[in-house]
Amino acid sequence: MIEGVYLDGIASGIKSNGKKDLGYIFVPDACASACVLTQNACRAAPVLITEKHKKLGRFKAVFFNSGNANMLTGSTGFETAQKMQQVAAESLGLSLEAVAIASTGKIGELLDLDTVNAGAFRLFQSLETQDFEACMTAMLTTDLLNKSTYQSATINGQKIEVAGMAKGSGMIEPNMATMLAFLVTNVAIEPEMLQQIFSQAVSDTFNMISVDSDTSTNDTALIISRPARTINWDDADQFKRYYNVVYQACRDLAIQIVRDGEGMTKLMHVTVRQAPNAALGQQIVKSIINSPLVKTALHGGDPNWGRIIAAAGKAPGASAGVRVDCIELRIANTLVFQSGEPIAINTPVLRKELQESDTVAIDLALGCGTVDVEGWGTDLSKTYIDINVAYT
Amino acid sequence: MIEGVYLDGIASGIKSNGKKDLGYIFVPDACASACVLTQNACRAAPVLITEKHKKLGRFKAVFFNSGNANMLTGSTGFETAQKMQQVAAESLGLSLEAVAIASTGKIGELLDLDTVNAGAFRLFQSLETQDFEACMTAMLTTDLLNKSTYQSATINGQKIEVAGMAKGSGMIEPNMATMLAFLVTNVAIEPEMLQQIFSQAVSDTFNMISVDSDTSTNDTALIISRPARTINWDDADQFKRYYNVVYQACRDLAIQIVRDGEGMTKLMHVTVRQAPNAALGQQIVKSIINSPLVKTALHGGDPNWGRIIAAAGKAPGASAGVRVDCIELRIANTLVFQSGEPIAINTPVLRKELQESDTVAIDLALGCGTVDVEGWGTDLSKTYIDINVAYT
Repeated sequence: MIEGVYLDGIASGIKSNGKKDLGYIFVPDACASACVLTQNACRAAPVLITEKHKKLGRFKAVFFNSGNANMLTGSTGFETAQKMQQVAAESLGLSLEAVAIASTGKIGELLDLDTVNAGAFRLFQSLETQDFEACMTAMLTTDLLNKSTYQSATINGQKIEVAGMAKGSGMIEPNMATMLAFLVTNVAIEPEMLQQIFSQAVSDTFNMISVDSDTSTNDTALIISRPARTINWDDADQFKRYYNVVYQACRDLAIQIVRDGEGMTKLMHVTVRQAPNAALGQQIVKSIINSPLVKTALHGGDPNWGRIIAAAGKAPGASAGVRVDCIELRIANTLVFQSGEPIAINTPVLRKELQESDTVAIDLALGCGTVDVEGWGTDLSKTYIDINVAYT
Repeated sequence: MIEGVYLDGIASGIKSNGKKDLGYIFVPDACASACVLTQNACRAAPVLITEKHKKLGRFKAVFFNSGNANMLTGSTGFETAQKMQQVAAESLGLSLEAVAIASTGKIGELLDLDTVNAGAFRLFQSLETQDFEACMTAMLTTDLLNKSTYQSATINGQKIEVAGMAKGSGMIEPNMATMLAFLVTNVAIEPEMLQQIFSQAVSDTFNMISVDSDTSTNDTALIISRPARTINWDDADQFKRYYNVVYQACRDLAIQIVRDGEGMTKLMHVTVRQAPNAALGQQIVKSIINSPLVKTALHGGDPNWGRIIAAAGKAPGASAGVRVDCIELRIANTLVFQSGEPIAINTPVLRKELQESDTVAIDLALGCGTVDVEGWGTDLSKTYIDINVAYT
């Protein structure tokens, strides 16, 4: 973990199974923070509170719980979230606006404030703990895999670091895909610039993954920086290399989330190339990774290229960038469609290759621009249905 | 069937299983036609040809095949589609622009022109056949149910009729949801007005159903009118009542398509009320009927209201119309959420009711407008996955 970053996690009793469910990350000398929150119009109480202060870019800590999303819990839930922020601020000696909060887990059930308070009392007893593992596991709900990343680079002659952890995705206990990601870094930076960098990185990574197309009410991605190192931000190369460290950290966590998608057996890595602009490229990637027909074909290792082209064609705005005569489609590096005509391929051989792979690359060149976009999805399995038919 | 409408269907050999696969509808004295085609940017050859002439509103016939979509078949496929239009026009004694064509079935395989020509020779031998059943079954691919409708009303003292047939939906043999719907009616009407009425009716019915959110490359809905009856189009009440006959016919067919959705066990009937406008209401309905989380919950008969609200909240533009404090949600007429708070319900009783129902009504009042919108979807079952894991 990065020097000067303190973190921990405990089992407070919010989860009935005795697993860790309460944690924090604290960067006492933080100089900037940036935050991206769910776009769902229905937002959980902790998201509303974090939203309120995010523009300041002055978070020095995040305090979170798992096991309960504190969502659709009315005014009582909102008060509980306020109290969560308050107890963390008091324990850490911070002002309210320096503490972000986040919750993940069940929807529509009240989060017990006494449990949170008692847990906070234990959790914040020592403020010098650096237990990455405890903090990371306290975020998890039905995750099967731990998710962490550490990226570094030498920029301006100094060691620049980004470390982070995440939970999700899939429909996490019990109601929907809920993604949390918390990162820390060690550069002197203004909040506006950190927000700009982080927003772009989130847009290119976390926002380009999908397990089931369902946007959570609690999604929160947050980064906090402490000014241990300096970068010359006016140097385009240094800026770009720092962006890349943040991007790689986000990309690494995003792919780990997809790898833990509910019921997934195969990772779908979609690249749309030669798009006229990033927005359309993203729409087309998302249309492919969210198509039930593409997802079921992937599950069967079926090289069903017709479904992929149809999914591209149904993307919003596709008529501006998808022309059958111009596209080239490759599945697992095999060219299957070009110049408006199917390519004769050995289907049984390709099918066998897909069935034996745990990652399948889909590469669609649109032939109408210069922008490349990538995204990651899962197949759709019966296990997904088993997991999701009964929770309420 | 409506007087003056001729139709038939035969097994021409396009389908290898010997089932009917070639058919036509012919209205010799047609006065107007209207047509709505797939919005997919990738369109099959027959769609491109029908598109070319649809604005004239002068189709007097539709000639179609099933078993092969003639999609992603390159220039050869396009020539075959042109020849299809030509052979029908010559056989029926019509100009090219009076003949719409449509295809449905496998993607990426060439449609054999000799088979179509030999079939057309048999099919068009008599032009006085009125075999609705033969025509309707010639449209089907993997459909399990026949789909037809007949609606009538007395308007302006005359019997006004709309009859129709449809095929789809679900991922029909083998690649995607493919929907065709052909209707006939018996009023003197200008093409522009018929198009206006039909576009609205399609928008409110066929475009508000979903089995798997995948838009076909071949979708075609068409209506042809013969001037047997007259309506006073300047009379708003007569206009409205005629619209309603067309709307009911489309709605009836649309629901039949959903009822035949692949692997479906339950119909989801979603009504979004009190929306600020129709566009947002439609987005929210579609977000709910396409949510994998809502669909799996429906499959298990699970009253998971949190997923429904989250699906509403993720709809594009939802922030303009979804406010947790204003919404009221009813599942199967049971109020489950109101004024930002969950309602205490007897979950086991509601779950049992849902599990025993083959249709589940979801009613979401947004509390921020006056527009009501409805739509229809299916649950998501393991059978859907079985059907779609291997086709290529």
